[in-house]
Amino acid sequence: MNNSFGRRLTLTLFGESHGPEIGCVIDGLRPGLRVEEETIARLLALRRPAGLISTARLEPDPFRIVSGVYQGRSTGSPLCILIPNLDSRSSDYVNLLNTPRPSHADYTGFVKYGGFADPRGGGHFSGRLTAPLVAAGAIFLTALAEQGIFLGTHIARCGGIADRAFGELRADLRHLEQASFPVLDAARGKAMIRAISEAARAGDSVGGVLETAVIGLPAGLGEPWFDTLEGLLSHGLFSIPAVKGVEFGDGFALTEQRGSRANDAFRVEGGRIVTASNHNGGINGGISNGMPLLFRTAVKPTPSIALPQQTVNLATGEETMIQVEGRHDPCIVPRARVVQDSITALVLLDLLEAEAGTKQRNCAEGGGCSTL
Amino acid sequence: MNNSFGRRLTLTLFGESHGPEIGCVIDGLRPGLRVEEETIARLLALRRPAGLISTARLEPDPFRIVSGVYQGRSTGSPLCILIPNLDSRSSDYVNLLNTPRPSHADYTGFVKYGGFADPRGGGHFSGRLTAPLVAAGAIFLTALAEQGIFLGTHIARCGGIADRAFGELRADLRHLEQASFPVLDAARGKAMIRAISEAARAGDSVGGVLETAVIGLPAGLGEPWFDTLEGLLSHGLFSIPAVKGVEFGDGFALTEQRGSRANDAFRVEGGRIVTASNHNGGINGGISNGMPLLFRTAVKPTPSIALPQQTVNLATGEETMIQVEGRHDPCIVPRARVVQDSITALVLLDLLEAEAGTKQRNCAEGGGCSTL
Amino acid sequence: MNNSFGRRLTLTLFGESHGPEIGCVIDGLRPGLRVEEETIARLLALRRPAGLISTARLEPDPFRIVSGVYQGRSTGSPLCILIPNLDSRSSDYVNLLNTPRPSHADYTGFVKYGGFADPRGGGHFSGRLTAPLVAAGAIFLTALAEQGIFLGTHIARCGGIADRAFGELRADLRHLEQASFPVLDAARGKAMIRAISEAARAGDSVGGVLETAVIGLPAGLGEPWFDTLEGLLSHGLFSIPAVKGVEFGDGFALTEQRGSRANDAFRVEGGRIVTASNHNGGINGGISNGMPLLFRTAVKPTPSIALPQQTVNLATGEETMIQVEGRHDPCIVPRARVVQDSITALVLLDLLEAEAGTKQRNCAEGGGCSTL
Amino acid sequence: MNNSFGRRLTLTLFGESHGPEIGCVIDGLRPGLRVEEETIARLLALRRPAGLISTARLEPDPFRIVSGVYQGRSTGSPLCILIPNLDSRSSDYVNLLNTPRPSHADYTGFVKYGGFADPRGGGHFSGRLTAPLVAAGAIFLTALAEQGIFLGTHIARCGGIADRAFGELRADLRHLEQASFPVLDAARGKAMIRAISEAARAGDSVGGVLETAVIGLPAGLGEPWFDTLEGLLSHGLFSIPAVKGVEFGDGFALTEQRGSRANDAFRVEGGRIVTASNHNGGINGGISNGMPLLFRTAVKPTPSIALPQQTVNLATGEETMIQVEGRHDPCIVPRARVVQDSITALVLLDLLEAEAGTKQRNCAEGGGCSTL
Repeated sequence: MNNSFGRRLTLTLFGESHGPEIGCVIDGLRPGLRVEEETIARLLALRRPAGLISTARLEPDPFRIVSGVYQGRSTGSPLCILIPNLDSRSSDYVNLLNTPRPSHADYTGFVKYGGFADPRGGGHFSGRLTAPLVAAGAIFLTALAEQGIFLGTHIARCGGIADRAFGELRADLRHLEQASFPVLDAARGKAMIRAISEAARAGDSVGGVLETAVIGLPAGLGEPWFDTLEGLLSHGLFSIPAVKGVEFGDGFALTEQRGSRANDAFRVEGGRIVTASNHNGGINGGISNGMPLLFRTAVKPTPSIALPQQTVNLATGEETMIQVEGRHDPCIVPRARVVQDSITALVLLDLLEAEAGTKQRNCAEGGGCSTL
Repeated sequence: MNNSFGRRLTLTLFGESHGPEIGCVIDGLRPGLRVEEETIARLLALRRPAGLISTARLEPDPFRIVSGVYQGRSTGSPLCILIPNLDSRSSDYVNLLNTPRPSHADYTGFVKYGGFADPRGGGHFSGRLTAPLVAAGAIFLTALAEQGIFLGTHIARCGGIADRAFGELRADLRHLEQASFPVLDAARGKAMIRAISEAARAGDSVGGVLETAVIGLPAGLGEPWFDTLEGLLSHGLFSIPAVKGVEFGDGFALTEQRGSRANDAFRVEGGRIVTASNHNGGINGGISNGMPLLFRTAVKPTPSIALPQQTVNLATGEETMIQVEGRHDPCIVPRARVVQDSITALVLLDLLEAEAGTKQRNCAEGGGCSTL
Repeated sequence: MNNSFGRRLTLTLFGESHGPEIGCVIDGLRPGLRVEEETIARLLALRRPAGLISTARLEPDPFRIVSGVYQGRSTGSPLCILIPNLDSRSSDYVNLLNTPRPSHADYTGFVKYGGFADPRGGGHFSGRLTAPLVAAGAIFLTALAEQGIFLGTHIARCGGIADRAFGELRADLRHLEQASFPVLDAARGKAMIRAISEAARAGDSVGGVLETAVIGLPAGLGEPWFDTLEGLLSHGLFSIPAVKGVEFGDGFALTEQRGSRANDAFRVEGGRIVTASNHNGGINGGISNGMPLLFRTAVKPTPSIALPQQTVNLATGEETMIQVEGRHDPCIVPRARVVQDSITALVLLDLLEAEAGTKQRNCAEGGGCSTL
Repeated sequence: MNNSFGRRLTLTLFGESHGPEIGCVIDGLRPGLRVEEETIARLLALRRPAGLISTARLEPDPFRIVSGVYQGRSTGSPLCILIPNLDSRSSDYVNLLNTPRPSHADYTGFVKYGGFADPRGGGHFSGRLTAPLVAAGAIFLTALAEQGIFLGTHIARCGGIADRAFGELRADLRHLEQASFPVLDAARGKAMIRAISEAARAGDSVGGVLETAVIGLPAGLGEPWFDTLEGLLSHGLFSIPAVKGVEFGDGFALTEQRGSRANDAFRVEGGRIVTASNHNGGINGGISNGMPLLFRTAVKPTPSIALPQQTVNLATGEETMIQVEGRHDPCIVPRARVVQDSITALVLLDLLEAEAGTKQRNCAEGGGCSTL
């Protein structure tokens, strides 16, 4: 399957950026979960472009829950959300039909779908599809919060500027929840916005690094050999358009350390087993160890830029220049963070559902549950 | 499912490091593929520890094909390979039962499996399990080679030393196929070996970066939204013990570039559509674009070290020191590369099988197949 | 997953009978397939209740394709169809909330979903959900017809009356395609309608046997050990509400025969390998053998009847009587046949997609393809 | 996937009847389950042919647990069982290479696997493969018994003779557990054996009907729309070689009843909600309702018979006669019942694992768990 993700809890995306509606179906959601329309609206607003640093396209993102909710709670049946496409001018994209944008999905989509794909505005590949993904994410995040699990993402780097590192996680996550530009240090955030604006004025774009923290996660999530927590999360995270790298804990920096420094020693703290450091980002042997989960994604600069670029005319086979018109985002990093939160929440909630039975049995039989 | 990987073509691993045998089942292999025992033996030899820089444990890795092969070719039925555990002294591990090794799977395995897991030598978590994975990989690599697809992995960095970058890929891959220490520049390889030896003498370990190149891959592999080529590969690559990061093309370095530099312009070369640069590592929009596939993994230093480390006694709940005895590898990077090749081959072969029908239809109906 | 079916080609159903809309998502459909709105409308009309023998509820079944189609052909992206619920009076069902209808899903749904399920009109369990299933089926049937595969279902028995057996299949299937009451012998059809009407007048309901034939199917579909053609089809067929049995070929009658009579001898006919009889319904060893596929389902009498029935009040725990009001169908057999066709088409198209690559390779390598 | 079955709990079969070993891998088994070698041996013995009524081939079925068990309990890691093929004379089958046995998998396997399949003794299609399936089943049945769930299968009909119907289920199941010829009425069993012997003397074979009962099953297993309990069970049951039909409760007989007789009224008995009759075999709306689960399979007569039969020589394309030599079973019905038990146990245990978390939550939140 291609447009579905998850094992027990699955999310299916459908729609094209210039069709009447886009949407998603969530299946496997347990009955009785609170479904809060205001949380969905809040997350969709955080995904929305804002001002200079984002595309001029207005996306008010009204949404409609079609099924799966009764009296404010999930029924256990598939939950479908629809989001209408209000402001789409397909003429903007007409000249892209035969001249694929460099580093975009235009060319590979053409090869794969044999010319039958809807070419308007990227069609099903459009970043628009992250809207239903984020709407679903709001439901997953609410469910995690009910279990005491909280997560959030900040822009660790953007346009050459670094945010401060995560500190006291609970406070940092609470701050990010409300932040429309998700940084921990406001001054550095302003510097990032300046860098993005400069690139935009030059008809260019910038990328960045998104860093996520999860607290309250029990030990025991993830499975050998192939459904490691890292493997499942990265599988989903690479669906975020423009993500080209994922690292957990200290990630690539660990490769320069010796084992004696990279290892996280075990300690006892308040009756619980913890680690003294967290270079491994809360994961040992592919399984969560009860410490905060920490990871970063590399978001490349938006491929759609105003500057002229070289491409090939697929109809004539000749090289030509292309200038991408329409309204494009010089930096998707700020908006992508709620997508990252949503995918993370889906993977974690899916694993928690799968483990629910296991955990309770382990406790009953004297297993390692006391530390959960 | 946890110990299986792949959609149509699946690999299932079983066994523990101190059981009688470990093995794998490959299901979904198409009938008629050449199964070469000498290629399996060659890859298992490359995975084997060698001399100073690796564990003193001897692993001659004899193997036995139990099913799925008739007269030297795959039958289309499940192919089971068994590898006996010849030289395992379980007493080495007895003291690990209650004192989990830092940054190892001991603690998380205990939590997850409630104390029922086989604790001897890491049990099912042991790196030994990569032996059947590599045996299977040999079959996948042979099948890819028959389709003109070749791949290989070198140590891009280890112990602070960098190998030279990939150059002419066909020649580099041919060189790596035979190299027991997989570097492109022999002098730098010697420097790496020296760095590993130093760490070993200090009772410590080092990590590194493994870089893979694939040539001959057709455009069109991978699917929106969730089965991107990056997502599927990373899902598998994080199963390699100690991998903590994966990046495609220029990966994290892309986040410091502007779009005008990060984009790969399209060109026509010898009647085929190619890109002038390959910063995106052969993948656009989650789908292969026909250029060489390039990616890197971050391998952390081996967590098993001889130096004393702090841990917690799970039985008493008290903090204690542990000194890991037994024979341990000061650097698994050189051996891990055939594991990386094997997982890569599984993902690619699985996708090629899934696409086989699609491609032929697209051609027949005038789609983009001419460029494949 | 629960509300999705299919491996490569998947159908997901969503919606409740008293929500705003019900619908489906088809994923994995290959690009370029003709999507004919008139075929969808025609099949939805055959599913619609008609006159005396069916529920008085009017279901005009307008539908809307939301995504996945561009210029009349599938794009390869998920295809979503929405069907509004026009005529639903939820007050009809209010009294069912605490008094589950015998042999309906009311009680088991309550147990499973913990009281959170939408109780109005059966909610997600409602037979209404077969409308999007049939809309999807129309697309699958069109795709099969383009490959020369045709199928149809007649009422083999209903209300104690037997239809004539299948004869010349091509003609019989062409006849059934247009038949609003799907029998091969019109006189027997009239007798069935009489029997249904009698039961309706008595406040009661009847069941029947639906028999399906498929022609043009190549040999080689289905896989040992667990994805046999029988297993995959039956898995889907039991989703038809009220189906309690499935048999292939002569089915249960075979158990009274000796092997010498039950076996289908091989013969050569016009250069193709055929069987002299077809007691096995076109399947040997779980794999299609190129002969017509034949199977039957047992459809129990509709559980919703007007006669008073004994049940238990879930709120008080006391036994009580229930009289199901509202408009109910005294016999769903005639309408269920397009559901049976749709599920059959999904399973077959999914298998054909999976085999597409395999087949072409077998031919190239001298396998058994000449007979396909 | 083809040779694996189950969602969370999966069974993978491998091997060929004339290879060195056949076996299975069980993945997803929870840690801490008792694995009893004597139960495995007992079930394998019941699957073994016995005396006149079965093949003369001796299959002592020694087995070896390769992984996944430590100190008599499951570890949570994949459990591999190997069974050597001791007494296989491949010359018996040489003449079958080009002349497929009627109604066997020989021809369809040839078409599907392009002539690469191992032809000796049916290869991977051989009924021998049910040995590892039954070994796995013994583990599943033990796990069910620990939860108070018991099941068993009797020969309801064979060679024209009917066994008595199920009566007091607990006693009947206890009786069947030890019965080498699984009937409830010994006299009728003798008559069946006589009928089988007669067929065998005539060089022919007979089939029969196997009926299974399950007691102690909680309500709530199975899911709309596509993973109904009937659908999942039938999917597995059709893997039993020679099964051509499956019916639940009164099955096909229900189609002759009116709703008022077919419906099972709800009653209260000892504080629990039960049904007054059980025509629906313990399943409503695809979900278990807490009553005994009842179903029947149609087992066709063994296709391998000594009488001469017509077939086609695949090499020459000419019609020819075939006489199947070697030792063949005139009736596999008695032996198939442990296969039926094993597949049933796999499906039920898999569903119970999946539901474990759900159930406990429903209880906590005031759902319908009190009746479980």
